[in-house]
Amino acid sequence: MRTIFREGTRVKLIDQTRLPGEVALVECASVDSLCAAILAMRIRGAPALGVAGAYGVALAAEEGPAEWGSLSEHVTGAAERLRRTRPTAVNLSWGVARAMALVVNNAGRDVDELRRQLWTFADALADRDVEINRQIGSHGAPLLADGARVLTHCNAGALATVDWGTALGVVRTAARQGKRLHIYVDETRPFLQGSRLTAWELEQEGVPYSVITDNMAGHLMARGEIDLCIVGADRIAACGDVANKIGTYTVAVLARVHGLPFYVAAPVSTIDLAIETGGDIPIEERSPEEVLTFAGVRVAPAGARARHPAFDITPAEYVTGIITEMGIAGAPFDESLAAAVAASRAGDG
Amino acid sequence: MRTIFREGTRVKLIDQTRLPGEVALVECASVDSLCAAILAMRIRGAPALGVAGAYGVALAAEEGPAEWGSLSEHVTGAAERLRRTRPTAVNLSWGVARAMALVVNNAGRDVDELRRQLWTFADALADRDVEINRQIGSHGAPLLADGARVLTHCNAGALATVDWGTALGVVRTAARQGKRLHIYVDETRPFLQGSRLTAWELEQEGVPYSVITDNMAGHLMARGEIDLCIVGADRIAACGDVANKIGTYTVAVLARVHGLPFYVAAPVSTIDLAIETGGDIPIEERSPEEVLTFAGVRVAPAGARARHPAFDITPAEYVTGIITEMGIAGAPFDESLAAAVAASRAGDG
Repeated sequence: MRTIFREGTRVKLIDQTRLPGEVALVECASVDSLCAAILAMRIRGAPALGVAGAYGVALAAEEGPAEWGSLSEHVTGAAERLRRTRPTAVNLSWGVARAMALVVNNAGRDVDELRRQLWTFADALADRDVEINRQIGSHGAPLLADGARVLTHCNAGALATVDWGTALGVVRTAARQGKRLHIYVDETRPFLQGSRLTAWELEQEGVPYSVITDNMAGHLMARGEIDLCIVGADRIAACGDVANKIGTYTVAVLARVHGLPFYVAAPVSTIDLAIETGGDIPIEERSPEEVLTFAGVRVAPAGARARHPAFDITPAEYVTGIITEMGIAGAPFDESLAAAVAASRAGDG
Repeated sequence: MRTIFREGTRVKLIDQTRLPGEVALVECASVDSLCAAILAMRIRGAPALGVAGAYGVALAAEEGPAEWGSLSEHVTGAAERLRRTRPTAVNLSWGVARAMALVVNNAGRDVDELRRQLWTFADALADRDVEINRQIGSHGAPLLADGARVLTHCNAGALATVDWGTALGVVRTAARQGKRLHIYVDETRPFLQGSRLTAWELEQEGVPYSVITDNMAGHLMARGEIDLCIVGADRIAACGDVANKIGTYTVAVLARVHGLPFYVAAPVSTIDLAIETGGDIPIEERSPEEVLTFAGVRVAPAGARARHPAFDITPAEYVTGIITEMGIAGAPFDESLAAAVAASRAGDG
């Protein structure tokens, strides 16, 4: 089952807040319900959010008035609401922008035809995401030697994309090539995407793994129990600085100190050439309550305060390579990433 | 209220597994119940365990037979059971050994008198622990400038000792001197000693703080929001390598990369000159279930596996200074730590 798909004019997604306890679907028949699902992280992961953004524009066109001017206004407002739900992952804005280009190109034409086109476009974007992830897997798999012990952070798997995964897609591809791997899964507080989602995917895939708390990776590296790190990304600046789930930067620092490769796996759509360095990437601050509680259980004393930056920036100097569907980009990243984007656009053309 | 104390021939301790929800006492009237409380981490923290070890020997003498030979056998067996509950913190063995020396010195003498002596000795060790922590606080407080933003990991507070605290004792002393501080509290998975215990202590003390997940410290350091780190210790090797709660090593690496001081606060009883380097310190591996659950709620899928090293080793090269009751030891640690131990013994003599 895909992480996000549509049936008719309704968008369905696997509710990731209920995993691994149960596989439940959320149905979104309106832009508002999709925005709410994104805000609550029922769907998350940069590539999946990109596709959600495109489906969101289709939902907006579907629910909007039949008259072109009013529809355009409704869809434009909805696009802005969608973009604002999660500011860090650029893919969401990218997916919205791709769909909005279609709206602009159909200005004044038949509204029903535009709706059909938007649904078809979002479906194609979803199909293409799966294809891209398979390509990322193929490019990245040779980096994993037989017997490799791989650390990953957060969930950059099938659940973060439409299917297959980016960082976990590389693992999946290598495992299906017959390589024996052991994955160390950072539990990834506060949302526990590692222990809840990545462990669930690896359990289903039959790849051996161990969940660890985020603070154990350094110890395992010092003991020589990890060979390389591979993570996803929410936005990559032109210089190669990488925004990803909070804690990624710490993994990169530890990898550097222990002489381990640190790879990022992400589609070209995650590269934001309009952003020069990581310092310009907006870091979403989420509710402190998410740090102070879990599953309804309060863990801190009454009155406790907390911080909750949801992402951090890993400077390019810590990144060994960025695995995209166009191949593996290395330093100098300003050149290799620009080339990847240009090649991707040429392919689209 | 002290973390551990006795009433008559019963040992009472604050049940740290029930904080911050409620302040409940556990009463231990036997060595077995004390061992169970230590294993379940109802009491934890190296200095507190040292005192618990001494009280444990007193409990063993109290519950043992009145005949000297049988009593000696019972107490010796109990001492071994106590030592084995938590292998990493040396203070536990130290407290047991100090009390056992009293047993050996009273060989063949009146058993009731031995019992009285053991209780009195353990009480004195508890009193001395509070005094030592106050001295650590006095030595360490000048390191915290007015306005300092301090990161701490785990709980090295009143709850990890008999009262006052080591790392948090330094914070407490500086705060009572009128310094304005802000403490960043690593939540410290999997047991959440930070969000449950350290936050609770700071809340009571009225010192401003923010709980963060363990993976946020690197981000805050990169943003210039932390000035220095101070943690406790479970065992310090002769060369200055420090065993402490899992995740401490990662904090030390991050501090180094960001040019921040990294201090360890611990009583001299935590220094183990019989151990040359951190590689020789036994690292307790606890149940993986503690990683796969969060605040009592299962978070990982059925069948999930996990690792759970409970401590890690921070090499001496990452340590700016070790604050003991004898002053602040700096590099070269082999000399400064040996001097601190010698000075402490001279003081005891």
